[in-house]
Amino acid sequence: MAQENLSLVLHSKGDLRLENRPVPEPGPNEVLLQMHSVGICGSDVRFWQHGRLGDFVVKKPMVLGHEASGRVVKVGAAVKHLKVGDRVAIEPGVPREMDEFLKNGRYNLSPTNFFCSKPPDDGNLCRYYTHSADFCYKLPDNVTFEEGALIEPLSVGIHACRRAGVTLGSSVLICGAGPIGLVCLLVAKAMGASQVVITDLSSERLAMAKELGADFQLTVTRGDGPQQLAQSVADMLGAQPHIAIECTGVESSMQTAIYAVRSGGVVALVGLGAEMVTVPLVNAAIREVDIRGVFCYCNTWPTAIAMVASGKVNVKPLVTHRFPLEQAVQAFENKRQGVGVKIMLKCDQNDQKP
Amino acid sequence: MAQENLSLVLHSKGDLRLENRPVPEPGPNEVLLQMHSVGICGSDVRFWQHGRLGDFVVKKPMVLGHEASGRVVKVGAAVKHLKVGDRVAIEPGVPREMDEFLKNGRYNLSPTNFFCSKPPDDGNLCRYYTHSADFCYKLPDNVTFEEGALIEPLSVGIHACRRAGVTLGSSVLICGAGPIGLVCLLVAKAMGASQVVITDLSSERLAMAKELGADFQLTVTRGDGPQQLAQSVADMLGAQPHIAIECTGVESSMQTAIYAVRSGGVVALVGLGAEMVTVPLVNAAIREVDIRGVFCYCNTWPTAIAMVASGKVNVKPLVTHRFPLEQAVQAFENKRQGVGVKIMLKCDQNDQKP
Amino acid sequence: MAQENLSLVLHSKGDLRLENRPVPEPGPNEVLLQMHSVGICGSDVRFWQHGRLGDFVVKKPMVLGHEASGRVVKVGAAVKHLKVGDRVAIEPGVPREMDEFLKNGRYNLSPTNFFCSKPPDDGNLCRYYTHSADFCYKLPDNVTFEEGALIEPLSVGIHACRRAGVTLGSSVLICGAGPIGLVCLLVAKAMGASQVVITDLSSERLAMAKELGADFQLTVTRGDGPQQLAQSVADMLGAQPHIAIECTGVESSMQTAIYAVRSGGVVALVGLGAEMVTVPLVNAAIREVDIRGVFCYCNTWPTAIAMVASGKVNVKPLVTHRFPLEQAVQAFENKRQGVGVKIMLKCDQNDQKP
Amino acid sequence: MAQENLSLVLHSKGDLRLENRPVPEPGPNEVLLQMHSVGICGSDVRFWQHGRLGDFVVKKPMVLGHEASGRVVKVGAAVKHLKVGDRVAIEPGVPREMDEFLKNGRYNLSPTNFFCSKPPDDGNLCRYYTHSADFCYKLPDNVTFEEGALIEPLSVGIHACRRAGVTLGSSVLICGAGPIGLVCLLVAKAMGASQVVITDLSSERLAMAKELGADFQLTVTRGDGPQQLAQSVADMLGAQPHIAIECTGVESSMQTAIYAVRSGGVVALVGLGAEMVTVPLVNAAIREVDIRGVFCYCNTWPTAIAMVASGKVNVKPLVTHRFPLEQAVQAFENKRQGVGVKIMLKCDQNDQKP
Repeated sequence: MAQENLSLVLHSKGDLRLENRPVPEPGPNEVLLQMHSVGICGSDVRFWQHGRLGDFVVKKPMVLGHEASGRVVKVGAAVKHLKVGDRVAIEPGVPREMDEFLKNGRYNLSPTNFFCSKPPDDGNLCRYYTHSADFCYKLPDNVTFEEGALIEPLSVGIHACRRAGVTLGSSVLICGAGPIGLVCLLVAKAMGASQVVITDLSSERLAMAKELGADFQLTVTRGDGPQQLAQSVADMLGAQPHIAIECTGVESSMQTAIYAVRSGGVVALVGLGAEMVTVPLVNAAIREVDIRGVFCYCNTWPTAIAMVASGKVNVKPLVTHRFPLEQAVQAFENKRQGVGVKIMLKCDQNDQKP
Repeated sequence: MAQENLSLVLHSKGDLRLENRPVPEPGPNEVLLQMHSVGICGSDVRFWQHGRLGDFVVKKPMVLGHEASGRVVKVGAAVKHLKVGDRVAIEPGVPREMDEFLKNGRYNLSPTNFFCSKPPDDGNLCRYYTHSADFCYKLPDNVTFEEGALIEPLSVGIHACRRAGVTLGSSVLICGAGPIGLVCLLVAKAMGASQVVITDLSSERLAMAKELGADFQLTVTRGDGPQQLAQSVADMLGAQPHIAIECTGVESSMQTAIYAVRSGGVVALVGLGAEMVTVPLVNAAIREVDIRGVFCYCNTWPTAIAMVASGKVNVKPLVTHRFPLEQAVQAFENKRQGVGVKIMLKCDQNDQKP
Repeated sequence: MAQENLSLVLHSKGDLRLENRPVPEPGPNEVLLQMHSVGICGSDVRFWQHGRLGDFVVKKPMVLGHEASGRVVKVGAAVKHLKVGDRVAIEPGVPREMDEFLKNGRYNLSPTNFFCSKPPDDGNLCRYYTHSADFCYKLPDNVTFEEGALIEPLSVGIHACRRAGVTLGSSVLICGAGPIGLVCLLVAKAMGASQVVITDLSSERLAMAKELGADFQLTVTRGDGPQQLAQSVADMLGAQPHIAIECTGVESSMQTAIYAVRSGGVVALVGLGAEMVTVPLVNAAIREVDIRGVFCYCNTWPTAIAMVASGKVNVKPLVTHRFPLEQAVQAFENKRQGVGVKIMLKCDQNDQKP
Repeated sequence: MAQENLSLVLHSKGDLRLENRPVPEPGPNEVLLQMHSVGICGSDVRFWQHGRLGDFVVKKPMVLGHEASGRVVKVGAAVKHLKVGDRVAIEPGVPREMDEFLKNGRYNLSPTNFFCSKPPDDGNLCRYYTHSADFCYKLPDNVTFEEGALIEPLSVGIHACRRAGVTLGSSVLICGAGPIGLVCLLVAKAMGASQVVITDLSSERLAMAKELGADFQLTVTRGDGPQQLAQSVADMLGAQPHIAIECTGVESSMQTAIYAVRSGGVVALVGLGAEMVTVPLVNAAIREVDIRGVFCYCNTWPTAIAMVASGKVNVKPLVTHRFPLEQAVQAFENKRQGVGVKIMLKCDQNDQKP
């Protein structure tokens, strides 16, 4: 008798439905997972609201969700490192080709990757889901399923901080205190940053950032001049920061980041906004301030799990709301309204614990 | 009896004069040089024509010139590695402070550096000039004075190619075939680039680039779309280049550079134009194309001299015109009109050889 | 009717035979190749003479050969980038697992790799051979099959020079002028090394090195003291070299390499000898001379092919002898006796051209 | 009236005396410091006991001490960033020449550096001491003088961990739980290491390491086999460590470090022992385990002070004993006997507080 596989399917812009799909069979290099916890990402909401994100357009029904963890319930014939019962975190991007990017260790840049809930690839907001076993990472006993699901946003922070070159003694400006800004904050501190300033329009978000370890908070008001904000950052720190991590995608914030950073430093661009932006590139160039983009992540899961398992990074406070999978549409509506930080969907009817 | 020291002095915007100044005395860590060959740089012309370059403004009379070589005629008391008679190439930027940039090996970024012919610091378009001995590098016998003077523009190429990460097998787009584009070409090939495409509006300049080793030349017409030019580059190479080195400072060329480069690659910004530019930063960011500025150079003189001495880089063809120092104003007028590639001023009345 | 597939099989230590094996069928991600040119490597000879190399022991019959090129004669169902008739160079190491080394871009370090003619994996000294299509690289029309086969030793040189950090203006000591020392020489020069000193016991080999571009040759006599040899190198160059690439595996030569290199430099270990060696590690440590080993190569084939195709590296002079596959045992006997530099076996009866 | 300047002078091997020296005058780029806290380093004791350390031999009387902090009491004419009353930590190595090492940011490697208490250069175990102002770093109000003195050993840890490449998620083996092993432990954790195993012969030292944050302690017994110890490390961690930091200088421990590290990892050599050591270099080479030495430090003071000021690194527990300067010989005797971890000499008669 076929099991039911309740799934959250985006049919087209604005048309989000819970429906039953068949339980899939794992291929020889795959595992079948009973999903446990899946966080809602801003990109999921954008697909729902706009039917697209940049060049990626929803053209046929797609299951949402890519911040996920679950339990192995079936193992493909060729899989060696996982067994039934293992609890795993899922890396959503899986290379399809042995191309130059994979061979060089930057597989996130491969144009042919599978990626959960990037059209047309299905995500894992469902009861049962198959995934490449090589991109499922076993969770230690002291790491919860929700921490497992948070490995995905934490990976964004790790990849951003690596690309930005955060290291012992770095002073860091983080623009934006949303979920991504907050994981960058956690990771920057864990990498040894001595000082982190974080900015946002919302003083509530900044309060959360303070709790998570930000050394300074700077409330931005629409219309503040980028050079003036850069000066405020320098005043707070006693010197210009070595690094800025831009998580808003807003043009003026990119400008602030460039003006703020010390000569020889780095601006990492995590937030994505308008395709064309006007920025003071000469200012960056003659001070050798490098501008480095960030696309997802690669080689972060083992690191992220090790950090959570060792207690060096505590992601638990990021989860502010939980909904059972059956209430997924309502959960998305909450996320759309900007409620909380991270909303978790609980996909296992028999275990709704963190 | 004081020797005459004919010097080319810029008094203010447009007011360029040859005049006699006293022969200076070297300090304990300095050498007095009898100048031999000094190239004219585009920045010298800009100071003459506009009285400023970016934030640097000519406020009092300043000797021009910073692409220079000469012969040691007097040695300061503390100088150990040079003696009278040594032929040297001059690195124009000299740190004044033991600051964090110098300690970290990026002394070009120090805000307090002395720099020849950067207001208010005097340059070396004159008969006699004193300079920090630590920034004078002895020329091997098989390197001419003119090659010694060309170590400066060659250093721009080396620093740009280092920052861009050019290495064995790199495919490189160079935007602009002026003197800087050409030295970038020479250096990229010497570093092992397998393919170099160079662009320019002028087919004459591209012909020169071809002679110097460019594998492909792309003639640009004003109004060409950046994405279309990027496609032409990819078509020529059979793939997107790993690296673009932008030497024009023109906004549309920066856009072309970004669109052209392969995911995971680098755009190095050498040319400087308008303070604010509009560029497709999201395109760069999501493909992790890094944007890196270049400010002068550091740690290039020994490398550049070694390359010229070993015959791996041939800079001689860059010198297309020569004038005695007495005709310096006329030489500048030629440079202003865009004549040739590199114009050399010959400062030693008794030795006007290359 | 099954085609004959003449193959050079090592049955056990000393027992080398030509025999017919079945023509294999390519798997979905493989291609079937008609082999053209295969070079004899020192490691092939060691397996023949000693039945082992380090921990790798010949326990069952194995086809030798891994410096190879051929023509595609059949294409697996899933292969997209190759077609029948394509001429390809073969990268002999193929990852079997998506492990941490592959994900990080250092797939040569994976303990589970397939590798041609590393027991128990068969090599390609035969008429017909199947290989992972992702590790077959199409040769441009202007690259010969023999150049294609030489991509393998050239890759050793590229990986060694990359690991050693050779770059523009590097001065390099290469210990040993055998085939590997010579490819390191070619690559170091192509990467921009300004000066290369090469050492060997044999003046004939040094004469070959001079022809290939070595700036200095140092004849070593057994019993020469390492510190004295290091001094000779410094005297030749006018300063200590930045880098040493040790290609002999001899203890005293490793000592020479360490003493010779400038503070802050690198010793790359390519040659492998006794398991335990006695070396002046404190001398290296307090001068921060890094010691870096080299295991095969990764991510070198595209680079190597680009360098050969562009004419920047000329490997043709390395081939000094050729034998048809039918005379493989005789060819091995020549190699064992140290004849020439590189001996090529010609596997295609209808095309024995380079 | 000349002030007394009580100083701890090593006249020759075994001949250590407290005596009065004149109070020095600061040069134009120097400051005169009233010394406050100076730690005793193992190298000070070795000079006392053996009259030499490696190539450095005590040939004339020399003041000992180089782990130091003090208060500015007089400022040279050219000094801008310090004023009378500033509390500073002292970087003991000061470049004397603008050589290639300084220009490249690795000034610790310059052969002509001044270095406190390295013969023949005087150290700062005295009441008054002059030092290059550029190598005196102002302490924030919340950093004590003793923490200021501990910036020196902490810098050894920072330089070692940087050279070793410690980063987020690294697993690290530290060989030796003496003062240097302990600072490496503190720094590795601050840089984001997820797991640290530390070894020692002494279970007391390991207990201290545990308190300071070591995740695993491994008691070594003389005669333990290196490969067996390497296996024990892997068993503790669940995998081979990425990095080993060798702080004992003992041959068998270097062997353990090499065998223990994962392919592609790093062994950093901090401890120095016999000039020639016998090590499994082939094992390291074929697994591309890099061996990197460490000589003092460069560019660590600002980082170290920032880490202590921000509370990310707590060095206070390292100080186990204090003596007034007047009891310096007794303090040295304690250190010689291996008492405690770090012994502080208090040089200011009016302020013996931490």
